[in-house]
Amino acid sequence: MSESKSQHQRKEGEPQYTLLYHPGIPGRGEYIRLAFEAAQVPYSDPANEDKNRKHEVYSKIDPKFTGSNGSPPPLAPPMLQISGAGKNNSDLLISQTPNILLYLGPKLGLAGSNETDLYHINQLALTALDLSNEAHDTHHPVEMAAYYEEQKEESLRYSKQFRELRVPKYFGYFERVLKGNEGSGEGRYLVGGKLTWADTTLWQVLDGLHFAFPKECAAIQDKYLLLMGKFYPGIMEEKGLKEYINSGKRLKFSQGLFRNYPELDRQD
Amino acid sequence: MSESKSQHQRKEGEPQYTLLYHPGIPGRGEYIRLAFEAAQVPYSDPANEDKNRKHEVYSKIDPKFTGSNGSPPPLAPPMLQISGAGKNNSDLLISQTPNILLYLGPKLGLAGSNETDLYHINQLALTALDLSNEAHDTHHPVEMAAYYEEQKEESLRYSKQFRELRVPKYFGYFERVLKGNEGSGEGRYLVGGKLTWADTTLWQVLDGLHFAFPKECAAIQDKYLLLMGKFYPGIMEEKGLKEYINSGKRLKFSQGLFRNYPELDRQD
Repeated sequence: MSESKSQHQRKEGEPQYTLLYHPGIPGRGEYIRLAFEAAQVPYSDPANEDKNRKHEVYSKIDPKFTGSNGSPPPLAPPMLQISGAGKNNSDLLISQTPNILLYLGPKLGLAGSNETDLYHINQLALTALDLSNEAHDTHHPVEMAAYYEEQKEESLRYSKQFRELRVPKYFGYFERVLKGNEGSGEGRYLVGGKLTWADTTLWQVLDGLHFAFPKECAAIQDKYLLLMGKFYPGIMEEKGLKEYINSGKRLKFSQGLFRNYPELDRQD
Repeated sequence: MSESKSQHQRKEGEPQYTLLYHPGIPGRGEYIRLAFEAAQVPYSDPANEDKNRKHEVYSKIDPKFTGSNGSPPPLAPPMLQISGAGKNNSDLLISQTPNILLYLGPKLGLAGSNETDLYHINQLALTALDLSNEAHDTHHPVEMAAYYEEQKEESLRYSKQFRELRVPKYFGYFERVLKGNEGSGEGRYLVGGKLTWADTTLWQVLDGLHFAFPKECAAIQDKYLLLMGKFYPGIMEEKGLKEYINSGKRLKFSQGLFRNYPELDRQD
């Protein structure tokens, strides 16, 4: 399996990780990519490396696929395939964004420093992903399979409560988490004193919200001194992530999970 | 801490588990209760045991609470408190439904029989909980903090695509998972050959859907022979769960996550 486009070279004995996700958009795949990039561990991303390899993603979500080698079928991307990690050294296949992050976290050194940290990191990553789901629903509130233009009125209503009630609820929450952990994390980390997958995940959600709701983010940022003042700019400076962001390799937000429709943003 | 209302007696040395959830509704708390009941492990549920103890739930989600003893604050119930399991034998506090289930699964013997099962169980539980979230959104598609009556038009539209597209997608998916695992699970278990927290979680979602959309469930049940014909009735017969269901202790669906509004159900 080629890893030509990957930032880092796989070392002898390192597991061979394959991220299976739609090509061309960051989407939920980006939460997984950020974990690899932060840890500077190589991974393959076939649908983005070679357009002839998209089938590796889509064959796994074919409505006839019932799983393989003891792995159940995935419902949707992202999926992670790990060579030789399944039963009798077969490939292991797992899906669901928070589940893939949970699997990778300890292996990539992003799981904090004591045993119970794992459950707090998972708790916070799940909460950040809930916010990500709500951000998706701002442009698809009533019909997942229809166009935005077919649910624009509903999107306007959903987005209003999203900006006025939900964003303050989540931002206030994460501000409190950073405050409670300020002794160890100095406002830069959610759990303990070093980077975890809760941080990379929340960062990507914040970055997506800056893309989708630039006016709202600008208007409220001074209310969240730790979250917007220290955490958001701080994570971008982390080794691995800084390189990745500067590399130009990172996929740009467009018409995926986070979308910029100016009419859904703050109007004043 | 009293455990007077709990089904099972805590044995010497067993951890003291406290489920913190809203009183009176099954809600997301029920996913946690089912895991305890299936394992026949005692737990305390203070808000349901004594109305004077609701504050134990609400103090933890107070907008001023920044966490305690190294546990970050929760955003919302359910939460699980485990005596002595935190740093320096303090209480550990964790939240997020799938995270609590992940924590409990191995401790309650609901995590399958080999190491990688955990990630497949978590994957399937997360997917069942996604369906649970979509079922919630059928009556609250555009404004989480408003009444159903204020978003009835949107609910009708959301529910139509939920019944016509989303339920078949999820049901078809779980049918395939059961099919792929038929050799070990005989249509009765999602992963391997014994009960896991993916099973208890999916069962509760199916039960909620039977309450909320009885006509839809009746109309389509013959399409899903394993899911509706074997899995759904089978889980109810599991030791622990059968007792619990027959005990009358289980909270009834009402105006929570799953709601029965006949106008949102199939009309023919």
